[in-house]
Amino acid sequence: GLATIAAPAIAQSSDPIIRWRLVSSFPKNIETLYGCAEVMSKALAASTDNKFQIQVFAAGEVVPGLQAFDAVANNTVQICHSASYYYTGKDTAFAFGAHAPFMLNTRQQAAWAYHGEGKKLLEDFYRGFNVVAFPGGNTTTQMGGWFRKEIKSVEDLKGLKFRISGLGGQVLTRMGAVPQQLGIGDIYPSLERGTIDAAEFNGPADDEKLGLYKVAPHYYYPGFWDGTSMQHFFINSAEWDKLPKHYQAALQSAAALANIDSIARYDVLNPPALRRLVAAGAKLHAFPADVLDSAYDTTMELYEELSAKNPTFKKFYDSQKAFQKDASLWNQVSEFAYDSTIIRELRR
Amino acid sequence: GLATIAAPAIAQSSDPIIRWRLVSSFPKNIETLYGCAEVMSKALAASTDNKFQIQVFAAGEVVPGLQAFDAVANNTVQICHSASYYYTGKDTAFAFGAHAPFMLNTRQQAAWAYHGEGKKLLEDFYRGFNVVAFPGGNTTTQMGGWFRKEIKSVEDLKGLKFRISGLGGQVLTRMGAVPQQLGIGDIYPSLERGTIDAAEFNGPADDEKLGLYKVAPHYYYPGFWDGTSMQHFFINSAEWDKLPKHYQAALQSAAALANIDSIARYDVLNPPALRRLVAAGAKLHAFPADVLDSAYDTTMELYEELSAKNPTFKKFYDSQKAFQKDASLWNQVSEFAYDSTIIRELRR
Repeated sequence: GLATIAAPAIAQSSDPIIRWRLVSSFPKNIETLYGCAEVMSKALAASTDNKFQIQVFAAGEVVPGLQAFDAVANNTVQICHSASYYYTGKDTAFAFGAHAPFMLNTRQQAAWAYHGEGKKLLEDFYRGFNVVAFPGGNTTTQMGGWFRKEIKSVEDLKGLKFRISGLGGQVLTRMGAVPQQLGIGDIYPSLERGTIDAAEFNGPADDEKLGLYKVAPHYYYPGFWDGTSMQHFFINSAEWDKLPKHYQAALQSAAALANIDSIARYDVLNPPALRRLVAAGAKLHAFPADVLDSAYDTTMELYEELSAKNPTFKKFYDSQKAFQKDASLWNQVSEFAYDSTIIRELRR
Repeated sequence: GLATIAAPAIAQSSDPIIRWRLVSSFPKNIETLYGCAEVMSKALAASTDNKFQIQVFAAGEVVPGLQAFDAVANNTVQICHSASYYYTGKDTAFAFGAHAPFMLNTRQQAAWAYHGEGKKLLEDFYRGFNVVAFPGGNTTTQMGGWFRKEIKSVEDLKGLKFRISGLGGQVLTRMGAVPQQLGIGDIYPSLERGTIDAAEFNGPADDEKLGLYKVAPHYYYPGFWDGTSMQHFFINSAEWDKLPKHYQAALQSAAALANIDSIARYDVLNPPALRRLVAAGAKLHAFPADVLDSAYDTTMELYEELSAKNPTFKKFYDSQKAFQKDASLWNQVSEFAYDSTIIRELRR
């Protein structure tokens, strides 16, 4: 009878059309960073049949790049793409969502944030600002920046006018350097005139665009204050809570795609950019051991002080420190050991 | 007038209900590997409001684990979760979708497959089998396995009965070892009775379940034949082409989520598993330099021979080799340099 005829396998749904605005902390011309939001937004629109659309605005188009998080917290826009460490002025604990000097590397930061203690710590922390967050990009380990003169020992940092910010800037201040705050466009002329002595930005692919090798050819590594640098999509929690569950899930998957895409893109762009920079005159140097050791000790002192002042900072720091200890041992018998082998064999 | 009243912001859609079956190459009890398909399937169902559902079957439930790819190619099932290197018997070029001895590390494999030449090479190659593929998990660098006796030089490999397969097995054969094919459940009793001398499986988190440290306590690193090990979701191309575009996009994002989730999960599980194994008696050793050097030279000879026999192999090999050269240089001034610094500072 009729009762046994199956209903056609079609779901009648009435999915709301949702349009959000996203502000990026990054300018359009740094396409590696700016592009993460575009990758996420396109994947999200594609997987919702264009029903959930997010329009991406570059830094400064709606709010200044470094106010992206606040614009989300106060619901000026629903979502932003930014780096947590820009907001250490509010709370020093913001550093750990992106990177903190001498802490996790790129894989470890992802592990800690997706599957480790960081997942809940970050969720609870950002919820305190009415914000929900998902990892959405990573520059990977950055370079230590461009210097007009060689750094032969820790003494050479004394009085050095260095364009660097955040906790890295605090560490270098304690080591005698004089951190400078400069917009990206001001770096080249300041180095050229000698009003600053050094500047850090990112890695070869992004640094190449600034042309700094022409005026500050000494290119140092590793960027010990930026061993990794994760970005997030930050979402106003009231707007998030209003979303249909399947839009939430689609956004979360699209953010994961953007995250993995970002790292893969940097890993494809950085190697040839490094070759070109060296061919154009950049001189690669490792930071001397005494600089790294002194910077490490200074950083650990700073962390003790910040932990004493701020229990949230201490909670994050203790968690990352414990994870780093175990993860570094594992790294020494796995990826690091494999990389060492490849480096050795390619040199033979 | 009425004409100016906006239509309500609701899209009327008739999304088809789609149910697929996925066969995994992995058993349920290796949850790190088996779980990737569950993570993808849940993310996909969640982002399509449960309209696109994929039921996951463990190895052997529908077809044997090592026939998962064939089951997709001939449309017995629509999708599988498997490792490309299982299928080198069809074509040696399959290795490069997962790993090849002494080739890319985990980040490099992802970069090459998502943004490098590997993207198109793999797409075209798998399409030749009527298959569409997306990366969907990675064990990361594996260990070199469990040995009853120490390996002090390349001489100790002569006659060694070693449970290992794929191109790694071919390399070890040329070095005098005698590769053995054994199911996972047979490894422990075979090592215990001494019918084999050594066995490789994966890394600490998965290896711990087999308890091999009790019968073959010498745990070697690095697994030079498994510097990374990427898995894929392989999809029958006719089934893929029939999907609505937004279901395709949702599946692609869900696969990316599963991929990043897999690496993060291993990176959280492996470090404490390694500690427990060492506490239980596992003895960690690096392979001696002469073993690594001889294995590298043997591998390069094998690659030349396979390249001469198989133009597809050559195309993949040339691409990965060129990428590795540049990427390894970049690694030495970025993540590897940072990791070296952290290892040094944690030991001071």
